[in-house]
Amino acid sequence: MSEVHAARRERLRDRCAAAGSAAALVSRPANVRYLTGCAPPGTVLLVGPGPEDVLVHHRHPSGDLAEGRLPDDVRGVVLSGPEGDPAVTAAALAADRKAEALAVEEHHLTVARHRAVGGAAPGVRLSDLGSAVEQLRLVKDEQEISALRIAAEIADQALSELLESILVGRTERHLALELERRLIDHGADGPAFPTCVGTGPHSGAARHLPTDRRVEEGDFLTVCLGACYRGYRCEVGRTFVIGTTPADWQIELYDLVFAAQRAGREALAPGAACRDVDHAARHVLESGGHGEALGETTGHGVGLEIGEDPRLSPSAMGKLDACVPVTVEPGVHIPGRGGVRIDDTLVVRPPTDGGPELLTITTKELLAL
Amino acid sequence: MSEVHAARRERLRDRCAAAGSAAALVSRPANVRYLTGCAPPGTVLLVGPGPEDVLVHHRHPSGDLAEGRLPDDVRGVVLSGPEGDPAVTAAALAADRKAEALAVEEHHLTVARHRAVGGAAPGVRLSDLGSAVEQLRLVKDEQEISALRIAAEIADQALSELLESILVGRTERHLALELERRLIDHGADGPAFPTCVGTGPHSGAARHLPTDRRVEEGDFLTVCLGACYRGYRCEVGRTFVIGTTPADWQIELYDLVFAAQRAGREALAPGAACRDVDHAARHVLESGGHGEALGETTGHGVGLEIGEDPRLSPSAMGKLDACVPVTVEPGVHIPGRGGVRIDDTLVVRPPTDGGPELLTITTKELLAL
Repeated sequence: MSEVHAARRERLRDRCAAAGSAAALVSRPANVRYLTGCAPPGTVLLVGPGPEDVLVHHRHPSGDLAEGRLPDDVRGVVLSGPEGDPAVTAAALAADRKAEALAVEEHHLTVARHRAVGGAAPGVRLSDLGSAVEQLRLVKDEQEISALRIAAEIADQALSELLESILVGRTERHLALELERRLIDHGADGPAFPTCVGTGPHSGAARHLPTDRRVEEGDFLTVCLGACYRGYRCEVGRTFVIGTTPADWQIELYDLVFAAQRAGREALAPGAACRDVDHAARHVLESGGHGEALGETTGHGVGLEIGEDPRLSPSAMGKLDACVPVTVEPGVHIPGRGGVRIDDTLVVRPPTDGGPELLTITTKELLAL
Repeated sequence: MSEVHAARRERLRDRCAAAGSAAALVSRPANVRYLTGCAPPGTVLLVGPGPEDVLVHHRHPSGDLAEGRLPDDVRGVVLSGPEGDPAVTAAALAADRKAEALAVEEHHLTVARHRAVGGAAPGVRLSDLGSAVEQLRLVKDEQEISALRIAAEIADQALSELLESILVGRTERHLALELERRLIDHGADGPAFPTCVGTGPHSGAARHLPTDRRVEEGDFLTVCLGACYRGYRCEVGRTFVIGTTPADWQIELYDLVFAAQRAGREALAPGAACRDVDHAARHVLESGGHGEALGETTGHGVGLEIGEDPRLSPSAMGKLDACVPVTVEPGVHIPGRGGVRIDDTLVVRPPTDGGPELLTITTKELLAL
């Protein structure tokens, strides 16, 4: 694994050199993890100047998060006190090494930290690393995709077990907690994001926070969950109907969202514009008279973070590449009544490889539970 | 409640005026919540110029997080798109209102956001609000303390129920999940922080992340948990011994940590220097030969965030005030062997009011379970 991370740091080094900076200070946790495979809270990574990279971190109380997983080719520097900022120590180190310029993550460092970093490295010109590491993270290698595949299997498993239990009378909070317990039972590091369970009037809403409302006969029930496995996060969302037979409006709305979600999935291809994928899904809902009820995005990238680039929205720039994992998750929420949301994680693949690879395989038929 | 928040904003306005700024942009979530009582994710608050304060936020998908709880005397501005930054909109509004200066939270805004805020308010001088709101938050009113008291009751309750169940053979992960479920059962918004359960060699470590290790006979078991109630977060930690009779080294270590924790608690008083409280606890452990095994702090403030000011550490500046809630949590972790941690949340009160008020009342006797 250590070579994978070394190769990623090498790519970053090349980008920095091209931008005129021989050293970079990486502080965003997911970026540090991507480049080293480990990230105790607050850790920063100094890449260059020179061949040796340095991780600066606090002494972790349990000890095993940091030193145990440090790559062989990265030097670790442990701060002694609790008040020190690893970014400041790293900047001083860059100055000791006679760096002329140091590229920092201006979208992550606060103004106050940036000032302290500058103060610790007099004579070093601070520049903006921008989202250079996020751009490296966009296209995943097969090792990353297989972590996502396992994360998706875990989420599918937790969901399918829940469906076998009795749901009527249980609260949204309890269903969410049970799902999170099952994720961990099946080997997840933890939930990829707070599990969303919406019943009746709460169904179909994105990022609904579970309440004490209980599942009732005739409800729509929307569940959206994800597992985090070795740092990689996936997402699956389904809507069910509770009781015997769905009402006509429920079948109609479900069919519409299903058609929109399928259109979004089918639009995924290397070279497809992100906004076109969004449009494919959005257009179906708009034609059905539910464009208003749709959120601002119909999907997003996933990986070490749950909301990564690319975004699938009307204003999104850029095109999809092969090996980019994204969600496709259109939904309709009608205030006071509820709605439907269907959410999959897929990996963009060329048609010659069979097209988009569906990671979350729970059925999308309308199940009456 | 609305008057409480209006009074807090008035105090902030006074501080800003004294510092030469008629307007402040508050972006740190706990600060926004403190000043308005509500804080959908990403919300920012513009205080002044002029009498009207404005909350700028994204349309929340569920709708009920924002509008439902907006104070009457604060105007809400909802962004239409997902890409916009509420801080940028608020800055433009301050410019429209002819603000000369706008104080922003430089310890919270990233460099990139700060630049965008400045770009949206040409002709407005950006200054640093610093930790003005955090300083207002330091001393709690009785309403805040009663929220903390309820949070502590919930955590005590969850812990006491766990102790009645059979523990041997269960994993740290499962015990942590069960505690979190019980917190919610008893009315918590959620856990105040990730619940820490450490068995055997993991016992006594601060912020230990639960693993699949199972509880065994003869283990020390350290549990540290907290409830969040109406946004307020408390903390309680205890160490137990599993099985019939504790070993001699266990009794000895427990007595030492207990004495250190008591010394810390007894040092809490209005006017006491934070470093002296730390020293009181630390000195006991050092005298017992375990100063090395101690972390860098022995306690910290709690409130809308779990790790607030003040910090109880050797390098801490400042003194305690009445009505400041803090944790006292010395611990010893011996690598490979385990250890003891005892953690309470207390409110600093003058001796005339009976001295420090203990919120977490679970017994601190060494229980053999």
